[in-house]
Amino acid sequence: MAREIYLDNSATTRVFPETADYMRRICLEAYGNPSSMHHKGVEAEKILSEAARTLAGLLKVKPANLVFTSCGTESDNTAIIGGALAARRRGTHLVTTRIEHPAVLESMRFLEKQGFTVTYLPVDRDGIVSPESVHEAVRPDTVLVSVMHTNNEIGSLQPLAEIGRAVKDKNPAALFHTDAVQGFGKDRIFPRQLGVDLLSASGHKIHAPKGIGLLYIADKVRIQPMVLGGGQQRGLRSGTDNVAGAAAMAMSAGRLYQNFDEDIRALRAMKAVFIEEVLKIPEVRINGRTGEDSAPHIISVTVPGVRAEVLLHALEDRGVYLSAGSACASNRPHVSETLKAIGLSSDGTGSTLRVSLSVMNTEEDVREAAAAMADLIPFLRRYTRR
Amino acid sequence: MAREIYLDNSATTRVFPETADYMRRICLEAYGNPSSMHHKGVEAEKILSEAARTLAGLLKVKPANLVFTSCGTESDNTAIIGGALAARRRGTHLVTTRIEHPAVLESMRFLEKQGFTVTYLPVDRDGIVSPESVHEAVRPDTVLVSVMHTNNEIGSLQPLAEIGRAVKDKNPAALFHTDAVQGFGKDRIFPRQLGVDLLSASGHKIHAPKGIGLLYIADKVRIQPMVLGGGQQRGLRSGTDNVAGAAAMAMSAGRLYQNFDEDIRALRAMKAVFIEEVLKIPEVRINGRTGEDSAPHIISVTVPGVRAEVLLHALEDRGVYLSAGSACASNRPHVSETLKAIGLSSDGTGSTLRVSLSVMNTEEDVREAAAAMADLIPFLRRYTRR
Repeated sequence: MAREIYLDNSATTRVFPETADYMRRICLEAYGNPSSMHHKGVEAEKILSEAARTLAGLLKVKPANLVFTSCGTESDNTAIIGGALAARRRGTHLVTTRIEHPAVLESMRFLEKQGFTVTYLPVDRDGIVSPESVHEAVRPDTVLVSVMHTNNEIGSLQPLAEIGRAVKDKNPAALFHTDAVQGFGKDRIFPRQLGVDLLSASGHKIHAPKGIGLLYIADKVRIQPMVLGGGQQRGLRSGTDNVAGAAAMAMSAGRLYQNFDEDIRALRAMKAVFIEEVLKIPEVRINGRTGEDSAPHIISVTVPGVRAEVLLHALEDRGVYLSAGSACASNRPHVSETLKAIGLSSDGTGSTLRVSLSVMNTEEDVREAAAAMADLIPFLRRYTRR
Repeated sequence: MAREIYLDNSATTRVFPETADYMRRICLEAYGNPSSMHHKGVEAEKILSEAARTLAGLLKVKPANLVFTSCGTESDNTAIIGGALAARRRGTHLVTTRIEHPAVLESMRFLEKQGFTVTYLPVDRDGIVSPESVHEAVRPDTVLVSVMHTNNEIGSLQPLAEIGRAVKDKNPAALFHTDAVQGFGKDRIFPRQLGVDLLSASGHKIHAPKGIGLLYIADKVRIQPMVLGGGQQRGLRSGTDNVAGAAAMAMSAGRLYQNFDEDIRALRAMKAVFIEEVLKIPEVRINGRTGEDSAPHIISVTVPGVRAEVLLHALEDRGVYLSAGSACASNRPHVSETLKAIGLSSDGTGSTLRVSLSVMNTEEDVREAAAAMADLIPFLRRYTRR
């Protein structure tokens, strides 16, 4: 069988081997419950605190501002639903964009059922929200604004600092949340500099395991907790702390920050090579921006005349794994809201693939993937087109 | 340093080495997102389905009745809050007991704030709820009854089958939930035979890692999902599936069921030895039942004249780890509701330790622990008593 070329890193990543080893060691040796008063508990509690300290250092915040959750989705839910419900007395208006992850959009829909009103902002053809539109949308009764850091389907980056200023200028009490699940580890994100009150991140997108997420909550921001019980994590997230998961997330994030600039340059170089090669195939288009003003690891490719699923399966026979639209949602077919929002027709959305890179990829990977596409597309078009 | 004698297995357990190895392998090899359409996704999805099949087999239910959560607390929250909110049109009355885990009690308190009324049933001196009291408490507007399988502090077992019959006899539409976090893996639990509609279990109590839980939902039972987003797990629990966690839980559970009867007999034998030895110490008492009508792994010991925390720390210096009351809650001091409910005075609750065993313990462990207690208690009493 062909060698494995995994280009679906925005769906999930391979765990770094040293992180997997560390998790295993914690499960076998430092297996105590951080809430236990004896040495085995204290040992586990120290690992948990150290993980929070590491992640806080990377975000330039205090460890006390961080809560470990079970995934990015829970972080988004807790930030948005928990933030809105805690602020309900101040108002019931929310602002977000049309290109958010389902974890954000479904939180908004839940709140709509609870009597909140949501403004869904459009994006331009590059998938970017204008700070002006945010400024215009925020009202005196707006309690929370949620704008993602990096779009998961086309890699558009939002002008978060400007958006943060627009929010606070219009309504200083409105909370500003960002879903940074795709951005954390790919961009140096400092929520305090961006004016962000709530930030979501996920372990499994940064070479840590599935089952661990992170939520940053700024000082003085109140949220209604979502998981209720023994009062772990200062009452903000009950349930026995996932020590190994938290430690793994901190270790993988720490490693990503070790050679950060160099690694990101390498991702951008791979992205450029892939785009250059794939654009040699007739009619192929890239969606959104492609330069330094875009995510270093996400490329959205439209291949007119070929169904995305067909190309995906043809590529997997060659060992190349990528995604049709976004695989963040469950595997029932659905039309991408992001691709619609940037103006793609239904033909376009049905013929769009996402390539997503990680530091575990090489230039060879993207060259081989582009070559496989160049090889397959003309053949598939012959059988697809009437 | 003394060898480690870990007798706090109801707080959390050491992961089985083969389970830790399996998790590591999944993180490094089968790291795909089960929602991805390509081979790496399908491979992960197969592991996830296989885990559900294994666990369903142990519970004698269908895999489609199982939802993976992030912990027992999330399972309890989802069952109780999600079950009650989905049934709200039928009524707003709930029934539970005074000795439930905080994950259950806090779910009830949350629902009280939402306008529900909760009946908290008392228990007898052995920590047991009478089916008659349940029958009396259930009303036409009762939507959910939650009674735990095994109490986490004194190991009392509830007559679930009789309670299930009492619930359904009085109100067939009322949902019956059981928190089986301490019972799963220690007793053969078949929710359908018990008339249980919703059952919670947790991985880290059965030698799987922290960060994975299980919720059984009977056919036709509707719950309002708690984690909202991409619609994973048939829309019942969004967020990228924790494949390694689910597989680990299934593997550890499977191993516990391999030599089930023999292992449980061994636990009961250890429990009997410990009780026999510890009762030789003057004034020491055991709370709750101690025979086959109690959990095989939990022993609650009251040591009049010694503060539980003082004894706990003295024991940990000898390498013996156990718990003061319950360590399921965060480590702020609190008075045990269970110990109060069975009639202990505040002196009694402050002098009570929990010993909790697992298949990784030996008779030698409990003999050494009892010997250390026999050695330390007279000494500590001299310094505690006036």
